Amino acid sequence: MMHPHELEFSEAQMRESIVMAMDKISELVNTIDEQDTDRSADADMTLIRAAMQPLPESGVPLAELLDWLFGDACTKSLNTTSPGFMAYVPGGGIFHAALADLIGNSINRYVGVVATAPALSQIEVAVINWFASIIGYELHPSGGFLTSGGSSATLAALTTARTVKLGSSFSDAVIYTSDQSHFCISKAAFLAGFPRENLRILPADENFRLQPDIIRAEMEKDRASGLRPFLIGVNAGSTNTGAVDPLPELADLAEAEDLWLHVDGAYGGLFCMTERGKHAMRGIERADSVVLDPHKTLFLPYGTGALIVKDGVNLRQTYSATAAYMPEMQHTDEAIDMCEVTPELTRPFRGLRVWLPLKMHGAGVFREYLDEKIDLAQWVCEQIEEIPDLDVVAKPVISILAFAVREEGRTRDEANKLTRDLINKINTRQRVSLTGTTIHGRFLIRIAVGGFRTHMDRMEMLVDDLKACLAEVLSAPVA
Amino acid sequence: MMHPHELEFSEAQMRESIVMAMDKISELVNTIDEQDTDRSADADMTLIRAAMQPLPESGVPLAELLDWLFGDACTKSLNTTSPGFMAYVPGGGIFHAALADLIGNSINRYVGVVATAPALSQIEVAVINWFASIIGYELHPSGGFLTSGGSSATLAALTTARTVKLGSSFSDAVIYTSDQSHFCISKAAFLAGFPRENLRILPADENFRLQPDIIRAEMEKDRASGLRPFLIGVNAGSTNTGAVDPLPELADLAEAEDLWLHVDGAYGGLFCMTERGKHAMRGIERADSVVLDPHKTLFLPYGTGALIVKDGVNLRQTYSATAAYMPEMQHTDEAIDMCEVTPELTRPFRGLRVWLPLKMHGAGVFREYLDEKIDLAQWVCEQIEEIPDLDVVAKPVISILAFAVREEGRTRDEANKLTRDLINKINTRQRVSLTGTTIHGRFLIRIAVGGFRTHMDRMEMLVDDLKACLAEVLSAPVA
Repeated sequence: MMHPHELEFSEAQMRESIVMAMDKISELVNTIDEQDTDRSADADMTLIRAAMQPLPESGVPLAELLDWLFGDACTKSLNTTSPGFMAYVPGGGIFHAALADLIGNSINRYVGVVATAPALSQIEVAVINWFASIIGYELHPSGGFLTSGGSSATLAALTTARTVKLGSSFSDAVIYTSDQSHFCISKAAFLAGFPRENLRILPADENFRLQPDIIRAEMEKDRASGLRPFLIGVNAGSTNTGAVDPLPELADLAEAEDLWLHVDGAYGGLFCMTERGKHAMRGIERADSVVLDPHKTLFLPYGTGALIVKDGVNLRQTYSATAAYMPEMQHTDEAIDMCEVTPELTRPFRGLRVWLPLKMHGAGVFREYLDEKIDLAQWVCEQIEEIPDLDVVAKPVISILAFAVREEGRTRDEANKLTRDLINKINTRQRVSLTGTTIHGRFLIRIAVGGFRTHMDRMEMLVDDLKACLAEVLSAPVA
Repeated sequence: MMHPHELEFSEAQMRESIVMAMDKISELVNTIDEQDTDRSADADMTLIRAAMQPLPESGVPLAELLDWLFGDACTKSLNTTSPGFMAYVPGGGIFHAALADLIGNSINRYVGVVATAPALSQIEVAVINWFASIIGYELHPSGGFLTSGGSSATLAALTTARTVKLGSSFSDAVIYTSDQSHFCISKAAFLAGFPRENLRILPADENFRLQPDIIRAEMEKDRASGLRPFLIGVNAGSTNTGAVDPLPELADLAEAEDLWLHVDGAYGGLFCMTERGKHAMRGIERADSVVLDPHKTLFLPYGTGALIVKDGVNLRQTYSATAAYMPEMQHTDEAIDMCEVTPELTRPFRGLRVWLPLKMHGAGVFREYLDEKIDLAQWVCEQIEEIPDLDVVAKPVISILAFAVREEGRTRDEANKLTRDLINKINTRQRVSLTGTTIHGRFLIRIAVGGFRTHMDRMEMLVDDLKACLAEVLSAPVA
């Protein structure tokens, strides 16, 4: 062999490469307050093509690769780790998770079954138990597992519901959800095998909430057509406005009609760690399944969602499978082979990146951070309400709000244009990044408070920029 | 707030925590040659329960957590990173991937769409192009994406095939595969919505290969019953014995009958980087979809599989979805929004852990490592063939072989008992870890050569232990 053992780093090589990476990471984190929030528009095809070179036969020094990665490749992007990132639904990126993955990848134990790494494999079970307790589920018989994100968790929820509620023929089953639901519900329904025409996307009310009566009316029509009402997909914090559907009434309906109640708590669910979040989402503990996104509201880096179910047996019924080449499975409630209750067999050691930060700080610190995000959203809402030319269209139930330029005295198109000009001007200042959405033809600016680095100082910058940009927009001559 | 900004590590805290982790990691890696291969049996419920403490309200020092993680929790496990790990299908754990995830998690950019991180998001596209070229696909129009592992990739393959080949009603579609296929095929078929009774698990021949004639006979019966033959699931390196199904003949059959040809190359596929692997798997480039597991044969830590498809449009047709709150999607072939061609929207930055090691070393080094594994498997096979009381039941097509105590002069049960005693004795010596499997009632010991740290010195230990243990087993009084 030309390069004996080249892939096996010596201790010196490991430490040297880590120091090189840490120098770059430290520089990035240390200057984060001064970094522009979004330089993605500066990237061009030359940069993209540089990322897509053909498979190289020989290597390139790490230093060169790091220079490129932390240089233009990283810089010319939406700065999702900036304190000013309030676009989409903010993710996290606390360093603890990077540390956890460094450890998990280095020890590279197989945590899909108890037999091969008994203590490490059960770290994920611990984390799932924590989430169940946060939601308010009974620890037994609840269950769940970590996924790569909310979409995977939603797909797994629908597959589980399908297995438990329906037979092997399910093309007559109907799913009900609102026009405010994330598209992951309809995508998951299709991927789980439901015909696209069996998804009812129902109009939400003026507070962007799904109404039980509308579902009842639809169900009646569906039953009359020989279809089988099957599942209600409910929002506990919608992406557009942060709306929380009326969980207790929807739970009553699901119970009365024997429907599966699925809650999308990807953004909102973990706010149940706070008093106000728990209050806003009361009834969530009656759901059959709940999706959470720890890469949002536990401030972890992208790549960690969770599915939690009220009855863990439902997962085993859906995902259990084994073969002669597999190790022995557990027959105790105290230890769970994750491959028996998830779609995956081999998978990353996701548990550690959740377990480590919660063990290092305790839940109390996360609760305080989440409470701070609620406070900041309330505060910025009050500031906007005092600005005469702006309308708060959706007040924050948790930490997302939406607003627009007032329509009084303007056509919808005029108001939309002003709102679009406003968000563009705000984003151009590069101190905050906001995104918009369109609901019933009205363009809204969303403020999603969720970054772990986002504190009051940055909210004040947002309000300053908002006021200044609004003045510019309103004083501009109409084109 | 009691702990202002506690989740935001300072540069000093970041570096300190990394040094603490690196001390443990270095110690682990430096002593790996002397570590026992499997101490999982030493774990007990006390250790498992220690991993599963309730959600803590306050924190524990990192040093304490690291002591526990790298102490009993890690040690009392199957040592999947040992050079003696030849059980199941070996995974990897090269440090490069840990380094890549440390970087990816720290910069935490959103790589699901081009618009938000143009260069970083296309690193995954680059990696997929590399895999397509390794398989022998035309770069255009092939496509694919990285998954958490082979099971997720297989599920995505079947969902894609279903979408492309079948309408929204597909309960009459039939899937053909062999009794040597990994159970992920039947699990994926069920999860993708196919009735369990529509899966034909067909007997493999004496070389553990699926035979086209058997499929033809089954298809005839199925068509006569009004069912729709749909997909053939083919092995390019089976888990039990490493068998490669006759790809050219099966490709001919699939082409003639308009079936989707799916290849499970989770273990074998990336051996196409070598001449011998390419030869063994000729015809793989005719598949409609191929699953690869870079966490096996690119020596990465667990958590990286891949689905590669001959026609990338098939993925877009299956997974495309959008919404008002989403950024703008691409309309060029040169840049691909991964959320448009995968089941996921937000997901981990998987591309970097594949891209970085291949960029650092070039494909040549990986090819040499893979060639070495083939050489080692051939060598150990020749050694076993010279031992009179052993039968090589499956010679290595690539780097997996299976053997057992000879049956001549013994009943099946007697031979099985001796073979089980033999593997137990070998594993007890803690220099190698082997696993077995049962095919048609015969218990076989498998040797799966695949660990990046596994070299000739460890293979010699294996042969020494095998000979010594066989002598003990054969001389033991029959119970």
